[in-house]
Amino acid sequence: MNAPGPAIAAAPPEQVFDWLETEAQRRAEAGLVRRLRARTPDTGELDLAGNDYLGLAREKRVAGAAAAASLRWGAGSTGSRLVTGSTELHAELEHELARFCGTQAALVFSSGFAANLGVVTALSGAESAIVTDKYIHASLIEGCRLSRADVAVVAHSDPDAVAHALRTRRKQRALVITDSVFSVDGDLAPLPELSAVCREHGAALLVDDAHGLGVLGEGGRGAVHEAGLAGQPDVVTTITLSKSLGAQGGAVLGPRRVIRHLVDTARSFIFDTALAPGSAAAALAALGVLRGEPELATRVRTTAQELATRLTAAGLSVSTPAAAVVSVRAPSPDDAVAWAARCAEHGIRVGCFRPPSVPDGVSRLRLTARADLTESDVDRAVQVIVDNAPN
Amino acid sequence: MNAPGPAIAAAPPEQVFDWLETEAQRRAEAGLVRRLRARTPDTGELDLAGNDYLGLAREKRVAGAAAAASLRWGAGSTGSRLVTGSTELHAELEHELARFCGTQAALVFSSGFAANLGVVTALSGAESAIVTDKYIHASLIEGCRLSRADVAVVAHSDPDAVAHALRTRRKQRALVITDSVFSVDGDLAPLPELSAVCREHGAALLVDDAHGLGVLGEGGRGAVHEAGLAGQPDVVTTITLSKSLGAQGGAVLGPRRVIRHLVDTARSFIFDTALAPGSAAAALAALGVLRGEPELATRVRTTAQELATRLTAAGLSVSTPAAAVVSVRAPSPDDAVAWAARCAEHGIRVGCFRPPSVPDGVSRLRLTARADLTESDVDRAVQVIVDNAPN
Ligand SMILES: Cc1ncc(COP(=O)(O)O)c(C=O)c1O
Ligand SMILES: Cc1ncc(COP(=O)(O)O)c(C=O)c1O
Repeated sequence: MNAPGPAIAAAPPEQVFDWLETEAQRRAEAGLVRRLRARTPDTGELDLAGNDYLGLAREKRVAGAAAAASLRWGAGSTGSRLVTGSTELHAELEHELARFCGTQAALVFSSGFAANLGVVTALSGAESAIVTDKYIHASLIEGCRLSRADVAVVAHSDPDAVAHALRTRRKQRALVITDSVFSVDGDLAPLPELSAVCREHGAALLVDDAHGLGVLGEGGRGAVHEAGLAGQPDVVTTITLSKSLGAQGGAVLGPRRVIRHLVDTARSFIFDTALAPGSAAAALAALGVLRGEPELATRVRTTAQELATRLTAAGLSVSTPAAAVVSVRAPSPDDAVAWAARCAEHGIRVGCFRPPSVPDGVSRLRLTARADLTESDVDRAVQVIVDNAPN
Repeated sequence: MNAPGPAIAAAPPEQVFDWLETEAQRRAEAGLVRRLRARTPDTGELDLAGNDYLGLAREKRVAGAAAAASLRWGAGSTGSRLVTGSTELHAELEHELARFCGTQAALVFSSGFAANLGVVTALSGAESAIVTDKYIHASLIEGCRLSRADVAVVAHSDPDAVAHALRTRRKQRALVITDSVFSVDGDLAPLPELSAVCREHGAALLVDDAHGLGVLGEGGRGAVHEAGLAGQPDVVTTITLSKSLGAQGGAVLGPRRVIRHLVDTARSFIFDTALAPGSAAAALAALGVLRGEPELATRVRTTAQELATRLTAAGLSVSTPAAAVVSVRAPSPDDAVAWAARCAEHGIRVGCFRPPSVPDGVSRLRLTARADLTESDVDRAVQVIVDNAPN
């Protein structure tokens, strides 16, 4: 039995959420209030904010596949993957993802977020150690928080720090977690070095390749493939279907035994309705387009590099893009918001990342290249961004 | 600096996941191995396993809306709701959900799972207490684990136990969490009593109405509406778009201040790609169908009750269905699997729930009624289930 706590005053119902106003005020003072902007189908803006890196979300074959599958299979999958939610579309998508990325098997989740939650929790547990880069994606962090593992958060892109944490761990079983391309600054993790460290210390390596798939590696096979790690028995990859594949959903790719384990144990797989047929079909069609047009991957990388080079030349503080993401520092959250708003007034939509969406507290414009940007698109974007920079 | 742990033997890469085989063997011995079955578009089976309660997933207007939206808006939403992912479709869906269910506002997530994670974490935190029914859905449990709150898990559907936990809490701020209709047994939580207890103790009430929406309440407005709690300033509801609305996605419904707070702070909202346009459009169309045909909700309840009555009369151990879910106890996991398999051989697809998908360790067949089941469907289903019951 618990000892009774302090006497608690019962607030009237309409005051129960008053504490939210205090928090809202605090965010307002810090420049951290967000507003949802509902866009139209054709904004007329040049989009440098979305993650549709290959321009496939609205590509005829991809959108057409989503439409056809919705009519043929229904708008929803009707149940968990373990009950009625697994269709032939899901199975074919898993087969093709594994084949394309060079792994034994794949498992599709309803989002990349869910894939990350599922794989981190299922491959760790109280009897294991996790070592993560400090800038991993929020969904991986949530997975770590759920894991009950000993979690060591180490310096960014620092294999020595990972080695140290592995050496001093107290659990035999260990999982090292990193993004391939970090979502905020667009830099690439040292995957070969991380894999070497993992092997030296008997750890598994989990790589979130959300921003690598479709952009890096031979024909867009991703950063893990490029690093020669696809198909390795101690490496697991997560991807999302919602960025370069223009759809929705996520997947885990890896050894067959890992995939089987996820089917039996990953709670974000078991207790979640399967991905909608239309989204599965769209991702499958996008994979087909990418196979047929591998130059899409090269094109988005070249465009990102050009954006970065020209913005740097204009005196801005710009990250070196490893893939499609280019980030430009802003002096403050308010400056970032105002800068992005001025760009939008001039028809250029850019991302604006502020705390808590940035790992280091630094606000930024976040630009994403797309394979279908023209040279004059890039000219226009660079000019507007530079002209509207804060002093 | 950490003291070094015990010396750790570095397993060769191909042995890093050997521990998964041990766990797989343990599950096999316990009868807990799952297999994914990829279904065809037209299985010819009678489906009593899915959650498409109103038969809307393949309804022409719903599937057609998904198809049209995919073509018009693209297969994917291209980004987080906070960047490029919010479309007019999302805004309209939120408006209509709030209007239909009688709340000030609504916020759409990419799944019901994500909605639950987001709302539980955003409305709690280290400075708060959570009191939950012990049979809440896994996604709510994950939210509690992430919350850092003092979490008290209390007896099933027991307002007195909730009151005791609230009285003895050590934090001023408190959130009581329950499913409306529990997903495994299909029973209804005592919502009016829970609300009264919350009010007596100054706590907020969060109700997961995933299985109530479309089935309970006036015209399918859900269990929270039926209990007279919709629109109350201290009540928050989550729903899924993937069951009675036949689509994919989830939403939080409640006071406007709560919704605003989620936009700024819910990590499963901020760090997740927005729901695909096709899924948002399908849910919106389904809501329209339900508004026009409120008798769909009545029909699914009547059918569930008939299933339960007839299976009980045949001597099976059957739950009393409050909504569409009917659960039938099986002696063991293996019996449940074999029973479900025999039903499938006779063309009746039923769900089979085993640990860890059941909160109490009891394996079950889980049947779901649908508004579009005919009398002869029910006759056939009852006969097959009874004829194939374990001795
Ligand atoms: C690195 C990374 N991992 C995972 C995700 C989550 O994927 P999804 O949006 O499909 O849930 C994202 C972005 O949303 C991401 O940037
Ligand atoms: C009670 C309950 N809440 C939440 C969910 C999760 O919703 P979704 O499948 O849309 O993620 C489910 C089922 O999947 C459920 O049964």
